Amino acid sequence: MTDTLAITEKSRLRRMHERGHFDRPTINTILDAQPMCGVGYVIEGTPFVTPTLQWREGNHVYWHGSSASRALRQSRNADVCLSVSILDGFVLARSGMHHSVNSRSVTLFGTAFKVEDPDEKLQKLTHFVDGLFPGRYGSLRPDHAQDLKATMVLCMEISEGSAKVRTGAPSDEEEDYALPIWAGVIPVKTTVGEPIPDPRNLDGVAIPEHVRTFRYGSTRS
Amino acid sequence: MTDTLAITEKSRLRRMHERGHFDRPTINTILDAQPMCGVGYVIEGTPFVTPTLQWREGNHVYWHGSSASRALRQSRNADVCLSVSILDGFVLARSGMHHSVNSRSVTLFGTAFKVEDPDEKLQKLTHFVDGLFPGRYGSLRPDHAQDLKATMVLCMEISEGSAKVRTGAPSDEEEDYALPIWAGVIPVKTTVGEPIPDPRNLDGVAIPEHVRTFRYGSTRS
Repeated sequence: MTDTLAITEKSRLRRMHERGHFDRPTINTILDAQPMCGVGYVIEGTPFVTPTLQWREGNHVYWHGSSASRALRQSRNADVCLSVSILDGFVLARSGMHHSVNSRSVTLFGTAFKVEDPDEKLQKLTHFVDGLFPGRYGSLRPDHAQDLKATMVLCMEISEGSAKVRTGAPSDEEEDYALPIWAGVIPVKTTVGEPIPDPRNLDGVAIPEHVRTFRYGSTRS
Repeated sequence: MTDTLAITEKSRLRRMHERGHFDRPTINTILDAQPMCGVGYVIEGTPFVTPTLQWREGNHVYWHGSSASRALRQSRNADVCLSVSILDGFVLARSGMHHSVNSRSVTLFGTAFKVEDPDEKLQKLTHFVDGLFPGRYGSLRPDHAQDLKATMVLCMEISEGSAKVRTGAPSDEEEDYALPIWAGVIPVKTTVGEPIPDPRNLDGVAIPEHVRTFRYGSTRS
């Protein structure tokens, strides 16, 4: 296993030039920073994109849903494309052409497999929750067997794909820097607000450490 | 033209139940709040999802890119799926099963068409920039003809698809509300930071109104 993904025809489809990255640390950091993803799949020749949450363990990425979900049943053992994007800012240039966004994105290609073993499935779901909120799973009411049965976990190896990152100031045509036009970046930030306790929480139930210290967008190993 | 999208087999594919919406105001508000989208398309049976920016005019949605982009060339006159998602919060329940996210998403299905007429294309690109930053296009260096030629604008009618919205507190099993487990919502917010002027801006160029008053996530008509 190398530290870099293979550069394939598929993963080169995106305009790569200076913004493309194939190294695992860059790809993993983006995946870990943004659980929201879109999973693309094909049903009878038609493209579908389903928004869902992904989580990573080593060189695999996971997502889950209802076992009855047609999206998951159709993705199983099939080609999928998993896409994660983070918008970091609007880039305002001196011509319309050079307006852009600062962003980080990852596109992965592969075959989705179902996690079949029930113990492994529970372990993956535990990692999903604990990856976001360390230690939470053990504090919860244990899963009912029928709920686990009704949940499907899909898995894909991180082996084909790439990241794309744009940062910094606008890139204008050299002669346009002489124009009296305001250019710059409007940063976009994602922040976490004050936790809102469920009104039905029992009296005296303290807010857990994993909620108080939750940082969205932080990286995990 | 009705105010509601047709409920088709495709648009019902997502778990609809109480969270599905087919009315245009809900769909339009989400599209207008989040320009980042994923466009799904198929090349030789394989799914691709390309992150890009979308903008809406009436009952059509637009996106653009390089005329040389294989993503755009393959999407043209082909079935696409356009997906927009906004994460509003993490929902922490009393069992793993009922953990969720508060979010707003739109999935649209249709055929992508190229905006062929050069004047119409320029008008659409103008609306794209001015939709985000009112009045900006007129303040810019006019586009070079070859730049416009090198840009492709694709268009899709908003006629098939749906929105999905989840808000509010966790939904636990009734008996689980008796458990001493902290449940609640951690809100996620997207905010705009202080504009960062390009270091190469000319002296005395004032920050424009459309930058000072920029609000990301605000709705447009």
